[in-house]
Amino acid sequence: MSIQQSLLDKNDRLAERNRGFFRAKKLLVLNVLSSPGSGKTTFIQKTAEALKGKLRLAVIVGDLATDNDAARLRQAGIPVVQITTGTVCHLEADMVARAAGQIDLDQVDVLVIENVGNLVCPAAYDLGEDLRVVLLSVTEGEDKPLKYPPMFHSAQVAVVTKGDLSAATGFDRAQALANLNRISHHARVFELSARTGQGMDAWLAFLIEQHAARAH
Amino acid sequence: MSIQQSLLDKNDRLAERNRGFFRAKKLLVLNVLSSPGSGKTTFIQKTAEALKGKLRLAVIVGDLATDNDAARLRQAGIPVVQITTGTVCHLEADMVARAAGQIDLDQVDVLVIENVGNLVCPAAYDLGEDLRVVLLSVTEGEDKPLKYPPMFHSAQVAVVTKGDLSAATGFDRAQALANLNRISHHARVFELSARTGQGMDAWLAFLIEQHAARAH
Repeated sequence: MSIQQSLLDKNDRLAERNRGFFRAKKLLVLNVLSSPGSGKTTFIQKTAEALKGKLRLAVIVGDLATDNDAARLRQAGIPVVQITTGTVCHLEADMVARAAGQIDLDQVDVLVIENVGNLVCPAAYDLGEDLRVVLLSVTEGEDKPLKYPPMFHSAQVAVVTKGDLSAATGFDRAQALANLNRISHHARVFELSARTGQGMDAWLAFLIEQHAARAH
Repeated sequence: MSIQQSLLDKNDRLAERNRGFFRAKKLLVLNVLSSPGSGKTTFIQKTAEALKGKLRLAVIVGDLATDNDAARLRQAGIPVVQITTGTVCHLEADMVARAAGQIDLDQVDVLVIENVGNLVCPAAYDLGEDLRVVLLSVTEGEDKPLKYPPMFHSAQVAVVTKGDLSAATGFDRAQALANLNRISHHARVFELSARTGQGMDAWLAFLIEQHAARAH
């Protein structure tokens, strides 16, 4: 067995431990993944704000450096724990377990893990999430699912973000959806703009439904 | 010595061999790096087209999957070799050496290596390039240099791309330049739009000057 494989096996066991712990706490846990700059933080912030009074979100944020994203979320009144990875290109299950230990999970309904901005490495690391949510911003181009298949194939949810910039970027929606369908054929797809709010309702309803299915 | 360190040391030696080989061939070699969807391929294509009759470009393209980018460049009449990395998140020096062996380098002035779209892992792998060129598209946000310091710190050139979308995205140019200056204070900065051509002249003049400095 290669060393890389052995590290992945260890991560997978710790991820299952996380999964069991989160299940006992009746949490819905999302692993949110994308390129740098696809709009993960804004998307998470708008989601938390829109669900206020319905579902309580907490966020674990992974970044190589800076706590900019954590600070943005904290300013919006969202409980957040920062993981600084240094040069590590992804989050691992044990980092998430330690960060989750700093949150009062009995006061939380949905735990959102904002992964390091990277469409490659985080695909290989299970964190114990219920759903992998991969973002594709319209500014990145329609071909990304084809070029980063492990990431898009592993996602249960795909969210096309920054929809308000579709016209300015010449985004080919039909082509993007065809590419998503080819790689992530099993994934639920949402198209939205966190900035304008367009398309957010369907996403919020989905989260409420997913949480309800786990909460009883 | 850790295994990771030993692999990096091996890569560094092979990168120096590439560097010597490329120098003997009087090539200017660029390692072009960015997030997925920052516009690397369009930027390289427009650069090659604008330099036609002045400098001859060839391109080595790295991608996890698909040869879409290589096909786009080939259609534009640019010599191109594709490296398909599978699940590997970066190019390594030996991959580049093998790919370069498929190009008639005596007919080439500038060898452009389009790395895998990833702001983390490729930073650790020297390929034997003369210049690291990191792209930051205005759609990604001003904070990326602060959030991915190893990549931006290691670059000799930073190119702010997709300038035609600045207004639509609300890009804060002054903040972006301040962040670049903080992390990549030694880097030459260009601001341009490959789509409209705005700002390309300064970049092209820089390449001609850099090539001339190596060609005699």
